[in-house]
Amino acid sequence: MHAFRSHTCAELNKSHVGETVRLSGWVHRVRDHGGLLFIDLRDHYGVTQVMADPDSPVFAEIEKVRSEWCIRIDGEVKARDESLVNAKIPTGEIEVFIRDIEALGKSEELPLMVFGEQEYPEETRLRYRYLDLRREKMQRNMVLRSNMIRSIRNRMWDQGFNEYQTPIITASSPEGARDFLVPSRLHPGKFYALPQAPQQFKQLMMVSGFDKYFQIAPCFRDEDPRADRSPTDFYQLDMEMSFVTQQDVFDTIAPVIAGVFEEFGQGRKVDAANEWPQISYRDAALWYGSDKPDLRNPIKMQVVSEHFAGSGFAIFAKLLEQEGTEIRAIPAPTGGSRKFCDRMNAFAQKEGLPGMGYIFWREKDGEMEAAGPLAKNIGPERTEAIRQQLGLGVGDAAFFLGGKPKTFEAVAGRARNVIGEELNLTDKDRFAFAWIVDFPIYEKDEETGKIDFEHNPFSMPQGGMDALNGDPLDVRGNQYDLACNGYELVSGAIRNHKPEIMFKAFEIAGYGKEEVEKRFGGMVNAFQYGAPPHGGCAAGIDRMVMLLADEANIREVIMFPMNQRAEDLMMAAPSEPMSEQLMELGLRVIPQDD
Amino acid sequence: MHAFRSHTCAELNKSHVGETVRLSGWVHRVRDHGGLLFIDLRDHYGVTQVMADPDSPVFAEIEKVRSEWCIRIDGEVKARDESLVNAKIPTGEIEVFIRDIEALGKSEELPLMVFGEQEYPEETRLRYRYLDLRREKMQRNMVLRSNMIRSIRNRMWDQGFNEYQTPIITASSPEGARDFLVPSRLHPGKFYALPQAPQQFKQLMMVSGFDKYFQIAPCFRDEDPRADRSPTDFYQLDMEMSFVTQQDVFDTIAPVIAGVFEEFGQGRKVDAANEWPQISYRDAALWYGSDKPDLRNPIKMQVVSEHFAGSGFAIFAKLLEQEGTEIRAIPAPTGGSRKFCDRMNAFAQKEGLPGMGYIFWREKDGEMEAAGPLAKNIGPERTEAIRQQLGLGVGDAAFFLGGKPKTFEAVAGRARNVIGEELNLTDKDRFAFAWIVDFPIYEKDEETGKIDFEHNPFSMPQGGMDALNGDPLDVRGNQYDLACNGYELVSGAIRNHKPEIMFKAFEIAGYGKEEVEKRFGGMVNAFQYGAPPHGGCAAGIDRMVMLLADEANIREVIMFPMNQRAEDLMMAAPSEPMSEQLMELGLRVIPQDD
Repeated sequence: MHAFRSHTCAELNKSHVGETVRLSGWVHRVRDHGGLLFIDLRDHYGVTQVMADPDSPVFAEIEKVRSEWCIRIDGEVKARDESLVNAKIPTGEIEVFIRDIEALGKSEELPLMVFGEQEYPEETRLRYRYLDLRREKMQRNMVLRSNMIRSIRNRMWDQGFNEYQTPIITASSPEGARDFLVPSRLHPGKFYALPQAPQQFKQLMMVSGFDKYFQIAPCFRDEDPRADRSPTDFYQLDMEMSFVTQQDVFDTIAPVIAGVFEEFGQGRKVDAANEWPQISYRDAALWYGSDKPDLRNPIKMQVVSEHFAGSGFAIFAKLLEQEGTEIRAIPAPTGGSRKFCDRMNAFAQKEGLPGMGYIFWREKDGEMEAAGPLAKNIGPERTEAIRQQLGLGVGDAAFFLGGKPKTFEAVAGRARNVIGEELNLTDKDRFAFAWIVDFPIYEKDEETGKIDFEHNPFSMPQGGMDALNGDPLDVRGNQYDLACNGYELVSGAIRNHKPEIMFKAFEIAGYGKEEVEKRFGGMVNAFQYGAPPHGGCAAGIDRMVMLLADEANIREVIMFPMNQRAEDLMMAAPSEPMSEQLMELGLRVIPQDD
Repeated sequence: MHAFRSHTCAELNKSHVGETVRLSGWVHRVRDHGGLLFIDLRDHYGVTQVMADPDSPVFAEIEKVRSEWCIRIDGEVKARDESLVNAKIPTGEIEVFIRDIEALGKSEELPLMVFGEQEYPEETRLRYRYLDLRREKMQRNMVLRSNMIRSIRNRMWDQGFNEYQTPIITASSPEGARDFLVPSRLHPGKFYALPQAPQQFKQLMMVSGFDKYFQIAPCFRDEDPRADRSPTDFYQLDMEMSFVTQQDVFDTIAPVIAGVFEEFGQGRKVDAANEWPQISYRDAALWYGSDKPDLRNPIKMQVVSEHFAGSGFAIFAKLLEQEGTEIRAIPAPTGGSRKFCDRMNAFAQKEGLPGMGYIFWREKDGEMEAAGPLAKNIGPERTEAIRQQLGLGVGDAAFFLGGKPKTFEAVAGRARNVIGEELNLTDKDRFAFAWIVDFPIYEKDEETGKIDFEHNPFSMPQGGMDALNGDPLDVRGNQYDLACNGYELVSGAIRNHKPEIMFKAFEIAGYGKEEVEKRFGGMVNAFQYGAPPHGGCAAGIDRMVMLLADEANIREVIMFPMNQRAEDLMMAAPSEPMSEQLMELGLRVIPQDD
């Protein structure tokens, strides 16, 4: 017989009754039923009940066993009494009568129980991660992550992509976040950087003719920690293709993402990949108050300025006299009660706005009545016109926000989310996707008036060089995001592969030719030797697992995450270096005043 | 029609004749045949001949095209004249008559030609890597690498392994090489380290119950560059399993490796996985003079001390009077000429030995004669006994080395390689594997007399705690390497999972409990909470690709490698940091005197 196991803890069933077997695993739970000892023996695959009575030759040793000991047992498979069968687990029809036992690894008193649902502070869980990971949910999340990545790889390979590794110890590639630096020993005083993303390398591969690249790529950003962000390394499905349009990229990646969500979504509805809407950045802001809208929520905001211009509601009427202002409505089907409307008004105030005007429609004496102070102020005709535009009726409500859109769009978006949630309009059992397209290339700093890149500076402007000769704020990029349930899941672009357009694009944002060559020299030089048109995207792996596992904290889907202060307490990282190490690197630590 | 291509450059054949097609790719070569222009248009998939005559509406533009421009052409597929068919390429039956052309990316004068076999200095190749990578061999090597890794993953999944990612920004885990350090911004003065291997994490996963783990894992060692080693990051197939013996690990990984070599070996013979010999570290040193023997070479050395003890060859006879000395023979079938023997003797002298004695056997007057001074000195009987022991005959030779084995084993091993090569005994079309087992856990520093770990300190000693109570130099580990064609391809062990044995093992090497807890705290703590027996190994990915691609330099199988000074000239890494960056990290660079 094998030294440790003839079967896993998920394998035995009625067909094995009478066999002598060997199992290894962890003591999940021990129960003493009047002299009879029952142990739930657990391994990665499942749980098997093993037991002994005082007649067992090793009863005394079994009595010593404690939770989470790793043990091996030999024993005989017996059928359970019909009344004791546990139909919930594959091994529920049998138990194993123990003939021999060996403690493979004993355990000290546990700082964290594996069995049961007890909650522990995150610091405890991370310090004893090896125990935390034994818990069923963590095992499930990690296996989900592994299977999901496997599925992504298979789907990319099936579409003719090859996976190539790009350097990890490399040059700084400023992409908006801070680089992690790595001091060079052979070149003291000089530093490598860990890549924020393999952006330049994947574009260089396209220049090299590799045509279709992907990588489950480790990325590194020295950012301040957040619940949904790893403070050090994280993974992206990074991909790039040559000789493609934006639509080609969509047609390639959408089936991969949809396929993965279908495969691992446990029956939740997944919008068909070829039906994902393409919404311009501008429309997304108007309709949903967000560039990563949650389309599970059917609410779509509308401009209703005309109904308020010159109306009896002076605040809005006056507002509209200023240039660039608008009144927008958030329709709230089934929200037609004063209580709900007042609650939403209070929400807006908490978010820093003066409040949200509202109208709601109710039945009175068999007739529809528009209620709320706003309706009175603007009168029945305008109120009815609004109702008709929004397609609302009895029992529904609408909220109104006004001003320059930038000042209230984000709050409107959050109000839309809350309304959708509270009124149960948002379908929780669905993954809803939308491509957000036509991102502006530039934005203007309201205070300094300076023009800078709004997003990734490597995108091809729609209209190419001609567009760059017009108003920069009108330039849209061949640049896109994929939103899913309110998260940004994918981000990408058709790249700017023409050196002259690239230099011009950077010049508009105030970067001279020399600076561009210094910062992105590898790529810019390469573009001078026959660069193909190319584009691609990157999808957040951790985010996808979070959505599939229905977790709000990234640390639930990473095997060994850092804590919120970017520390690993289990491994004691970061730590003080040895002075020889600093010497070799030619570095000195500046003493800090606390 | 698609904006860039209706077909790739490898797709068109006779069945497309008459169709209007669109192709994109690079101008591989332009030929002007008396007014007719022929372009070999190349993409990742192949080459298609496109052509134009002066009647073409875009002839003037085609005339401007230069090597490595990236272009799009529209044209009509025509069958080639029977006499002009090129059977070597899939598109060799057709050519495309150009009707329209667009320069997608023009090229400056090339610093490195893609077409042709011209050699360039490595610095040129790496600085213009994006051009170097366009060359056929580099495309082939990178695709081989990608496909090989894909195959490895599939084979591991098929055996029930899951791939899990381990942290990259983490704690120092001293494994013999230098760590790369990463300064922490949130904790100034403290540093993370990049993992030399995910050793501790994979063992922690076993403690967590994950049972079967693998990862194509990036590893980081700050080592001085060498032709077959990347100076920064490199990849390993890292794997670990619980509840296994050494043989289980062999039975798991051998079919993966053998399968990959069969799949990508292009017909070279691969030793069957279940027939790979298991050779003890000690025997490997004796028989092959190496712990990574090349078994394509049939030569097996033997101890022949008895034939020299008390013989007339005074040097060896005297040597043998000292304790711990031996005489070993390297048989050299077909090496029986004075010229060859003298050349090998000279080789030994160049390697720092006084020389190698030899005997060779020739025919004289119809009889076998043993020639060479050694034969004379020891006389015909001893000479004949040696010949019989070694199984040699007319036309063969044997070389002899004596002393303490450690002083000549390595040279003997190299001599064996050279003899095998020169006599064509080494089968070049074969991948020959051997497990090297029973590594000693400890070695003694000859000068200081100090006992230290010979290899990985985490291996379980054979015989456990009992063995550690005896002579440390007698302790063998459950530790193994896989040798292939003279390279170490895999290295692994059954781990020491019992804290008390681990502390004892470290104590013998002079590390106190406190130091062990400080260095390997994460793992040692974990072992106190029910650790399973476990073991695994790591296989060098880059090395495997090198063997399969028949390349001697690791830079031929890595997409964007560093140069030998650990610099990336294309991306300008490492480089001087900005002073704000250093400030944020709380670091100062110590000025260097040159």
